[in-house]
Amino acid sequence: MKKFINSVDTLLDESLRGFALAHADILRFNADPRYLARTSPRPPGKVALISGGGSGHEPLHGGFVGLGMLDAACPGQVFTSPTPDQMMAAAQAVDNGGGVLFIVKNYAGDVMNFEIAAEMLDGPHESLLVHDDVSIPEHQGMGRRGVAGTTLVEKIVGAAAEAGYDLAACKALGEKVVHATASMGVALTSCTVPALGRPTFDIGEDEMELGVGIHGEKGRERAPLASAAEIVETLAQTIFDELKPGPGQQALLHVNGFGGTPLMELYLLYELARQYFSGRGVDITRSLVGNFTTSLDMAGASITLTLLDEETTRLWDAPVHTAALRWGV
Amino acid sequence: MKKFINSVDTLLDESLRGFALAHADILRFNADPRYLARTSPRPPGKVALISGGGSGHEPLHGGFVGLGMLDAACPGQVFTSPTPDQMMAAAQAVDNGGGVLFIVKNYAGDVMNFEIAAEMLDGPHESLLVHDDVSIPEHQGMGRRGVAGTTLVEKIVGAAAEAGYDLAACKALGEKVVHATASMGVALTSCTVPALGRPTFDIGEDEMELGVGIHGEKGRERAPLASAAEIVETLAQTIFDELKPGPGQQALLHVNGFGGTPLMELYLLYELARQYFSGRGVDITRSLVGNFTTSLDMAGASITLTLLDEETTRLWDAPVHTAALRWGV
Repeated sequence: MKKFINSVDTLLDESLRGFALAHADILRFNADPRYLARTSPRPPGKVALISGGGSGHEPLHGGFVGLGMLDAACPGQVFTSPTPDQMMAAAQAVDNGGGVLFIVKNYAGDVMNFEIAAEMLDGPHESLLVHDDVSIPEHQGMGRRGVAGTTLVEKIVGAAAEAGYDLAACKALGEKVVHATASMGVALTSCTVPALGRPTFDIGEDEMELGVGIHGEKGRERAPLASAAEIVETLAQTIFDELKPGPGQQALLHVNGFGGTPLMELYLLYELARQYFSGRGVDITRSLVGNFTTSLDMAGASITLTLLDEETTRLWDAPVHTAALRWGV
Repeated sequence: MKKFINSVDTLLDESLRGFALAHADILRFNADPRYLARTSPRPPGKVALISGGGSGHEPLHGGFVGLGMLDAACPGQVFTSPTPDQMMAAAQAVDNGGGVLFIVKNYAGDVMNFEIAAEMLDGPHESLLVHDDVSIPEHQGMGRRGVAGTTLVEKIVGAAAEAGYDLAACKALGEKVVHATASMGVALTSCTVPALGRPTFDIGEDEMELGVGIHGEKGRERAPLASAAEIVETLAQTIFDELKPGPGQQALLHVNGFGGTPLMELYLLYELARQYFSGRGVDITRSLVGNFTTSLDMAGASITLTLLDEETTRLWDAPVHTAALRWGV
């Protein structure tokens, strides 16, 4: 296993300590139980946004803690859900009188643990489920997974909370954004989980995994490696058919790298995806390209489209100051 | 070769078109000859900062074009110097009456091509050579390579140009920053250049390349893979011995990923490097962690330390609006 590591047991805490030291102007790290909490002043009564999930997807979610986005993030071990005590402690630390909104990616472990935390929480709280992976059918098994669209949900709802939306309004807005968002990914290689020490799955030199999840879960199809144009056509068509945007519909196009794919290739995918959607009448008015929802060192990428209206465009543009997204401040 | 690609011949232009579309608020792409130029208004008489080099190091340099940093960047083919006609055209496009400063990483091809461009340029111009790689002796062959410290030089000098420093003052400041900057890197894997289609070099499962260049050039030593703590000790000690910071010296610590290494590991390296320098009396007052000077999909990282004073701290903090670095605006 070729990783920078001292030991599998200490990697996460050492990394989180480094993260908090590098971004001490934004957040602090509570070691036991583990959570990252925003340190900048927050208006009294502001809804507290808390997310979390397995580690290994950085910058998601810790990189989104800060002004205009999350109030806290709860990191589990690599690809392992955080536990309810983490979410409870985070909620107690950041509840500012406006209640707590948990933003949860749709994975069995995350859903269960956030549900337990919610049951134990005294104050007002709601949960928002993100399930933007349209590579799998909507009502199969656990349903659709929460993937790279989570970044966009957290940014838009984060700006709303900052602007004074109350708990019910934040949840309703979040559901609107989730409904307007569709993602699909493709992996060219596996990732290597430190505790396992070898690739999670085998994939041939001429193969790709279409519709892969952000932990390397099997997707829709193992297929022969195709050209970038063919891959984008498959992903973008699936997304387009799901969202069915009308002519002139404004949208945010997010090309997300899984970690091991160079920016040069991500921008190539962006160019092709933009051509696809523009050619079908979608007006790409906002863009985000880079590694935001990663899967350790996996080579691969996903495409996400979020249909925008005046409200969500304004909230996307609102100031944000986190480790991974920053503008207007 | 597992890459998102249509053809080796079109990859660069397709990617640059996507890059310019995704960041149309910041820059534009001129296709022939190739350069990226800032589009936001610039004060008359502002020194124009132009950099460039082989592609494959993204976001360097195109990701640093914009307010408070570069006025233009000239991308060559992957790991291949741009040509003088690119630099000439970029200079003509962005010279705003204040002259042109070329920021050049110390590689034979880059140095030669920027020199030819400089000779052909009519207006006032200077060149600033970045040679921060302290893994190799100062006066060996071509001398030290320009590596991840380039980002810090371009940010600090970019802020100075924005603030009205004249050409001579920008160059003098740049030389001060280069002198105060030292970097050293380590590779765990090779990268794969698209046109080659296979890894640039072979490296065993239990080996690392200490002092590697950003194209996978051989470094100081091929060594057995060590713990993160041991690797950081080697890199940080080499940097410390070079810069010899006095007690209480303020500094910026930059941990740069080469592309294929997850953020979790980069923040682990940051934590260890910060411990090393802090333990020797250095006051780490500014930090930058992430993939800024990459080598396609290479797994590996470098550590850079830049000694700061009041002037360079203020210029580091000044507003910047580029694709890869943004704050204060």
